[in-house]
Amino acid sequence: MEGDMGPERIDEIGEWGLLERLRGFCAADLLGDDGALLPAAGDRDWAVTTDLLVDGVHFSDRTTPARSVGWRAVAANLSDLAAMGADPVAITVALALPGETAVAWAVELYEGMAACLERYGGAIAGGDLCRSPVKTISITALGRVPRDRALRRNAAQPGDAIVVTGIHGASRAGLAALLEPERFATVPTALQKSWIDAHQYPRPRFDAIAAIAPLTTHRDRPWCAMDSSDGLADALWQISRDSQVSLVIDRAALPLPPGLADHVGEDLALDWTLYGGEDFELVLALPPAIAATLIDHLGPPATPIGTVLEPGDRPLTLTDSTGRHRDRPLSGKATFQHFAP
Amino acid sequence: MEGDMGPERIDEIGEWGLLERLRGFCAADLLGDDGALLPAAGDRDWAVTTDLLVDGVHFSDRTTPARSVGWRAVAANLSDLAAMGADPVAITVALALPGETAVAWAVELYEGMAACLERYGGAIAGGDLCRSPVKTISITALGRVPRDRALRRNAAQPGDAIVVTGIHGASRAGLAALLEPERFATVPTALQKSWIDAHQYPRPRFDAIAAIAPLTTHRDRPWCAMDSSDGLADALWQISRDSQVSLVIDRAALPLPPGLADHVGEDLALDWTLYGGEDFELVLALPPAIAATLIDHLGPPATPIGTVLEPGDRPLTLTDSTGRHRDRPLSGKATFQHFAP
Repeated sequence: MEGDMGPERIDEIGEWGLLERLRGFCAADLLGDDGALLPAAGDRDWAVTTDLLVDGVHFSDRTTPARSVGWRAVAANLSDLAAMGADPVAITVALALPGETAVAWAVELYEGMAACLERYGGAIAGGDLCRSPVKTISITALGRVPRDRALRRNAAQPGDAIVVTGIHGASRAGLAALLEPERFATVPTALQKSWIDAHQYPRPRFDAIAAIAPLTTHRDRPWCAMDSSDGLADALWQISRDSQVSLVIDRAALPLPPGLADHVGEDLALDWTLYGGEDFELVLALPPAIAATLIDHLGPPATPIGTVLEPGDRPLTLTDSTGRHRDRPLSGKATFQHFAP
Repeated sequence: MEGDMGPERIDEIGEWGLLERLRGFCAADLLGDDGALLPAAGDRDWAVTTDLLVDGVHFSDRTTPARSVGWRAVAANLSDLAAMGADPVAITVALALPGETAVAWAVELYEGMAACLERYGGAIAGGDLCRSPVKTISITALGRVPRDRALRRNAAQPGDAIVVTGIHGASRAGLAALLEPERFATVPTALQKSWIDAHQYPRPRFDAIAAIAPLTTHRDRPWCAMDSSDGLADALWQISRDSQVSLVIDRAALPLPPGLADHVGEDLALDWTLYGGEDFELVLALPPAIAATLIDHLGPPATPIGTVLEPGDRPLTLTDSTGRHRDRPLSGKATFQHFAP
């Protein structure tokens, strides 16, 4: 609009635009991947990652009880550690709450955090507490990763198989079932519950890391992984960009939530699988033999979904091995973006 | 009030009450002091600390330009590292902003953070970015401290001298000068500027740590320090509680901001010195010879302010070596508390 001469706003350039402006302030040798790697004495480096969760943006009373908010906040950070191949050691918790918050809410939040840590490892090593008009939780997780064994987002190589550790889209389906129960009234209760569990209590995939760890001593190059917290398509897009390769994904191989397409239609089920986000599974690019070993170990729904190619015109292509759908470019950009311009 | 049967609220039990409820979730061996200590390979442990800053609570457009918000956010965390005797290595930055925030505000925030890191050490190792109705900044700082050389809040011993590294109350005076300029119209500009600088650009006291570090190789016990971010009286109160000792403080020895009492009166100047907070100086309890060496090195306004005694009826006593004021108990509890009930 002419005459709009105010200062440039964040929602005009979007999250990725802002990240570009701020990237130069960060240490290039520490940056990247799901967290930072800090060199240390001994045979292991430290991995550090941080996530901020805001009421009304990342959680809400309608969809996530306090226990789930705590579990998810920890799981999101641990998932970043898993994606780097790191074992969790400790987290710090910075918590800002309105004064009228129920004490029970805060206690249940911590119960959820403690339950997730008890399951996957790591301890709460202090934090900060203050008031704010908006419930806000910031967690920083610290883990250790064997020297030169970190998994990297930029390590995919042509010929690698692309593997996902599990179903994608279930968290988004669970969110929909919580927000629009009437829409899902005909969905069997057990199915709904599995989607809602995926949304409220996601599981960081340390089991996948444990499965490939014994194999890493024989590898001659870093392997590639990242978590799918911002969506499967976003993870694939970031891997292709940072590794400077093309990826071809078979839509027939994607592990959709069982039964979802029957209830919301094939198109929406595919959309949630690619762009829903918050499944906290791992997306890996591995030499085919390693990929096969991993999938054997994990069993279904872990599965190969595509192949890494030399860089080409299209960074991401969605094919269909059943021949029902034509090849089409796959966008990473349709993924949820904070401050979408 | 009878009939008030709603769930217990955080502002009914206060920050310290809530901390008591949540303490059990934290790992006792990692907790305490200004941050947590993580054992590591080699001859140094890791220190980790986190702080959350919220618009309208910790900063505001009226008192702190974006560059100052960034500087203070980093300085607050680095001050916690200094209080443990740790050298800064890296920070993570989790930032939540309303979409209408000016891009320039975010860039200037990072400029302030980078300037503080450049001055005192450490690099930005990534973070998180999301939207929120309230500007919120969460920083976690990581540092390294030589094994068995960490300064502890619980290490004060009877006979120790209590030392502060500098003036207290200047940050609070600067805040007042920014909020009520008319009240301070007769204060010389240079004096006002020194208070405002203390508020906007506090300096973590790594110089004090560097001064005593060469002496620590001869020590036979841990030494005691904490920073005065929550106020001088709060720091003294926490040291007396955690070390299980009594402290006697000489009000005539307290380093008040020069000129402040002339302008706001002696009582308010003393109040701001004890309870103002955010001076980010260090409060140490040291063997007298070590204390003398430190004060010689730093020069004024670093000064001894009191003595550590055996535990008694009063954890904190304010005396007056000039004889003008009678001894009185000193409260740590008058200190600012989030969610004050």
